Amino acid sequence: MEKIKCVISYDGTNFSGFQIQPRTRTVQGELEKALTKIHKGEHIRVHASGRTDTGVHAKGQTIHFETPFTLPPQNWKQALNTLLPVDLNVYKVEVVPESFHARYDVAEKEYRYYVWNEREKDVFKQNYMYQFPYPLDIQAMQYACRYFEGTHDFTTFSSAKATIKGSKIRHMYEVSCHKEGSKIEFIFRGSGFLYNMVRIIIGALLDIGQGRREPSDITDLLEKKDRRLLGETVPAQGLYLWRVKYEEPHQ
Amino acid sequence: MEKIKCVISYDGTNFSGFQIQPRTRTVQGELEKALTKIHKGEHIRVHASGRTDTGVHAKGQTIHFETPFTLPPQNWKQALNTLLPVDLNVYKVEVVPESFHARYDVAEKEYRYYVWNEREKDVFKQNYMYQFPYPLDIQAMQYACRYFEGTHDFTTFSSAKATIKGSKIRHMYEVSCHKEGSKIEFIFRGSGFLYNMVRIIIGALLDIGQGRREPSDITDLLEKKDRRLLGETVPAQGLYLWRVKYEEPHQ
Repeated sequence: MEKIKCVISYDGTNFSGFQIQPRTRTVQGELEKALTKIHKGEHIRVHASGRTDTGVHAKGQTIHFETPFTLPPQNWKQALNTLLPVDLNVYKVEVVPESFHARYDVAEKEYRYYVWNEREKDVFKQNYMYQFPYPLDIQAMQYACRYFEGTHDFTTFSSAKATIKGSKIRHMYEVSCHKEGSKIEFIFRGSGFLYNMVRIIIGALLDIGQGRREPSDITDLLEKKDRRLLGETVPAQGLYLWRVKYEEPHQ
Repeated sequence: MEKIKCVISYDGTNFSGFQIQPRTRTVQGELEKALTKIHKGEHIRVHASGRTDTGVHAKGQTIHFETPFTLPPQNWKQALNTLLPVDLNVYKVEVVPESFHARYDVAEKEYRYYVWNEREKDVFKQNYMYQFPYPLDIQAMQYACRYFEGTHDFTTFSSAKATIKGSKIRHMYEVSCHKEGSKIEFIFRGSGFLYNMVRIIIGALLDIGQGRREPSDITDLLEKKDRRLLGETVPAQGLYLWRVKYEEPHQ
């Protein structure tokens, strides 16, 4: 058996998220369908770095699967892309050691979130950015970002629906935002992320940008460990799983 | 009665084109549904500068309608956008004289077409550009563009399915293309366009870019007035109705 690692991208608009489910179109479902065809009907299971929700996009999601076949990476890439739908693409394939696991071996994940800060709706951005019509104080938001960097318990900033037991402590290498024209880009690089964490943090940052909270409130919010202190989760369509890093040699 | 002119934009992906049809989602259908609601059930007919096909986008389509109501333009805009779906937006409203007609008074139309010239598929561009993986000689294409400028009979470059009787002579103010990174932008400004004309011209330009034809062939092709001389019509998703100009004061 060989273990194959793939870096994939998808437009999340028409997927009911990553995880396979009966009678809905999911990324895992489409990948396993293509792999099963390549394997003449033998079911091949796909493992990802993590799930993504309905409408969330991926520029660099990472998956692995095991196969009895021995093919050069370029042939895997071509065989898969021939069978996959237009909104799902495999752009890098690598043969990895048996010990590699797409989920357990993650060293760092990067998410990005895009806000289109214009009063006028842009029909071409509806599925790709969160259209936010009110003025925002970018400097206050940038200042607030720093409070998330480092090691913290992110209980306040994770979904109450999350069923993960274990620790809610995560390390953020980078939390930043900048504005270019009407587009605001948020970058999150961390050791791992809790369920809905990026979307809840963005909600808090937009509150700060509107002057409803102070940047320094973040310290207090983190300490209180209470999800109910925060408002709405921002919409999925602005969120991109940008990159997954593994320990060398599986960068 | 007042006559109202609206400049609208739409993402053509999920519309079966502009023109109203039973049991399908069209731009005209959505506009008339919203207007009928505003008019308490009275059916209001919408007239556009012209139709667009399934999958074709609009940055600046223009329509008009007649109404017994007297509302400031800003209120029309707000009322309509509240009722319209996310992929259709009214961004400018004007009260115009009774004599104005969105189709008959067009002075100039601008179309743009986008090609994504990369070997690797980009899942985020599938509905918005034509992904063309082969190398293209941009200079040859730019040179060929000039042959379309000016006044010509465009029979060779219009759909054989077109039912328009009348003249196939049109005047092109500008036909140009340029490449920026992997994106190629084609700009067409003309007095009017025949059915599928832009998409057939782009097909011929891509042939020239691949060295299958010479730029100077265009003169001969225009003279022969025969659609069968040309290849495939390029896909709808790269095409945008960019702007419609009217005689002053209806710019």
